[in-house]
Amino acid sequence: MTGILAGLRIVEGSAFIAAPMGGMTLAQMGADVIRFDDIKGGLDSDRWPLTKDGTSIYWAGLNKGKRSIAVDLRNPKGRELLSALITAPGEGAGLFSTNMPARGWLAHEELAKKRADLISLNIVGDRHGSANVDYTVNSVTGFPMVTGPASYQGPVNNVLPAWDIATAYAGAMAILAAERHRRMTGKGQKIVLPLQDMALAAVSATGYIGEAVINGVDRPRFGNEIFGTFGRDFRTRDGRYVMICIFSDRHLEALAKAGGFADAFKEIETDKGVDLTLEADRWNARAEIAAVLEPWVAGKTADEVAAALKQAGALWAPYRTFRELAADPDTVRDNPMFTVLDQPGIGKYPVAASPLQFGAYEREAPRVAPLLGQHTDEILSDVLSLSSAEIGKLHDEGIVSGP
Amino acid sequence: MTGILAGLRIVEGSAFIAAPMGGMTLAQMGADVIRFDDIKGGLDSDRWPLTKDGTSIYWAGLNKGKRSIAVDLRNPKGRELLSALITAPGEGAGLFSTNMPARGWLAHEELAKKRADLISLNIVGDRHGSANVDYTVNSVTGFPMVTGPASYQGPVNNVLPAWDIATAYAGAMAILAAERHRRMTGKGQKIVLPLQDMALAAVSATGYIGEAVINGVDRPRFGNEIFGTFGRDFRTRDGRYVMICIFSDRHLEALAKAGGFADAFKEIETDKGVDLTLEADRWNARAEIAAVLEPWVAGKTADEVAAALKQAGALWAPYRTFRELAADPDTVRDNPMFTVLDQPGIGKYPVAASPLQFGAYEREAPRVAPLLGQHTDEILSDVLSLSSAEIGKLHDEGIVSGP
Repeated sequence: MTGILAGLRIVEGSAFIAAPMGGMTLAQMGADVIRFDDIKGGLDSDRWPLTKDGTSIYWAGLNKGKRSIAVDLRNPKGRELLSALITAPGEGAGLFSTNMPARGWLAHEELAKKRADLISLNIVGDRHGSANVDYTVNSVTGFPMVTGPASYQGPVNNVLPAWDIATAYAGAMAILAAERHRRMTGKGQKIVLPLQDMALAAVSATGYIGEAVINGVDRPRFGNEIFGTFGRDFRTRDGRYVMICIFSDRHLEALAKAGGFADAFKEIETDKGVDLTLEADRWNARAEIAAVLEPWVAGKTADEVAAALKQAGALWAPYRTFRELAADPDTVRDNPMFTVLDQPGIGKYPVAASPLQFGAYEREAPRVAPLLGQHTDEILSDVLSLSSAEIGKLHDEGIVSGP
Repeated sequence: MTGILAGLRIVEGSAFIAAPMGGMTLAQMGADVIRFDDIKGGLDSDRWPLTKDGTSIYWAGLNKGKRSIAVDLRNPKGRELLSALITAPGEGAGLFSTNMPARGWLAHEELAKKRADLISLNIVGDRHGSANVDYTVNSVTGFPMVTGPASYQGPVNNVLPAWDIATAYAGAMAILAAERHRRMTGKGQKIVLPLQDMALAAVSATGYIGEAVINGVDRPRFGNEIFGTFGRDFRTRDGRYVMICIFSDRHLEALAKAGGFADAFKEIETDKGVDLTLEADRWNARAEIAAVLEPWVAGKTADEVAAALKQAGALWAPYRTFRELAADPDTVRDNPMFTVLDQPGIGKYPVAASPLQFGAYEREAPRVAPLLGQHTDEILSDVLSLSSAEIGKLHDEGIVSGP
């Protein structure tokens, strides 16, 4: 393995999205990430979406480029093997876990008896340690009550698991911060990251709590409009949708050029006494701006709209379905981040590498996800230095398994 | 400053959410993050939400705990001063920028002439370097076409800026990875992180591209239901909403206990020939499960539902508005992550510290955001070792400013 984190070893016990995605993030930067699962498979082995044959596309997506070891987690000998693996000497950063009981033999305090400078990260549902998931965390944040059509009553959930994704990167970052600390002081540590606190910190950072407390208001539901400036969706003649935004003078000018709106925008400014180069004024005149754009977009095909906006340098994007996205040349097919992989049990499809481009390294192409226990033997041999005879015995006793 | 990143210095030139939130993430872990802005203020100085007096609550939320220096960015002497700051010797990791022109005097190649081991991170809109924002990136991902009420036609935008938030943490992580690399090799580097690639990598990791290509389907819009298991919103007698999920046997049992549903669940299993301990079967019987839960929730107040679900240990959450969240004891008021700060120009409200709990450090309480140029003089003095006379001259010439 090459990559900016080459030499770093992470042992991952994980479920759901945040922790496996965090582990994968480190793997795609060159760390040796060893995922352990019970010999019967983990909680997520069969999580949807599945192929027609029942193989989990979900699992493959979140475990790319890792090594897999399968161990009987109920067997004390299996547990002993794993704690030896987690605490093995070397550049190992230790455990990266979530929704695994980081209690008992997996507790940091227990593992640290074998390796004092162990680093372990435990992602938990909330600060009390309970089992919140992205969906229940999101309910509490306030976002579902302002998402969705302006006229809609009731909550609108995110399909996008935003808190899991952010937590994946925050967890990976925390491991690196702790590894820096260990490099400077020789000391390991336990890190706790509550999914709910991740969400609450973001709600705080983006000003929603401040607005609620200071202004004493609940922001209304504004549908697809971007609060405080101009941006929303429009429908084309052929029934497609585009998002059009104005965040700066340059975007305003580009849009005016794309559709010949300069006079219409001037008229809005005169009639309403506003200055459309100001965000607040664009927000206040958003209905009038939309009334100019709407018939223009509705009179053109998506291709015509795209050509005009693109040429003028406007800030816009087409809406796509997942299938359209997967087939799109610019974003996926010709994007060097993607490589078509042949994932065992699933087939060939474009798979993303790390979105990060480090100048000191060529970006590593994505690697397939392992089969359950695919690397059991090599891990027992190269990390724990077990002999073939010892490894054979573990198989015979049903303590480990291979694919 | 204390904290796990004490000693690390970051100079940040940023706008929008991803980069300032990334810088703040590092500041909240103890790094010395110096934000530079033009003496007239940055793009975001007046971004909504605002207080009644026009102070940006948004800006305060994303710049907590940083130092601020204000410099005339059009003046060559001002630029020279900032490049000296970015490339100052010491543990500085260098530049963290977005939507700033990392071209010309701010280009990595130019800055690296002054400090060969400079690390710089440039967050860009997409891989071509264009100015995409969270909203236009999200349009392309496919998520808006599956978010929102099942019967709705057209896209539903996220209000939550999910891609910006994930990019903030990924950027902070990348800085630490590069700093590790520099510690080991002595070499700096330029890092490029396209916001659109961040989103596409997550769409790939969560299986949506695989599903689209391998199964050849566009997943339909399922409203608030969690695909592939059981979870959705329910309305209480007093017009409140709760999210109820079943991800495991334990959640199924807890729910049965909370509402006395054991027989009703058995009946579903018999009638439909399903096993509700299996996720796929819960998904297939989701209408029947909902039909059991719906009248129960509708017949109780939110408080009664909460008490029953909590006691039984079900996986659930109430939906809240931002105002309700801000006033909630468990999630905000009594949460040690939050501290009520008096933010100059805004007032007192609960503000979040880092969601990460590092065992080796007490979590640092959140610090207020600076006023524009609040630390101009001390930065010029303590990082660039300028004398009072030199600093005074810069003020006289209008090259720098204070609050």
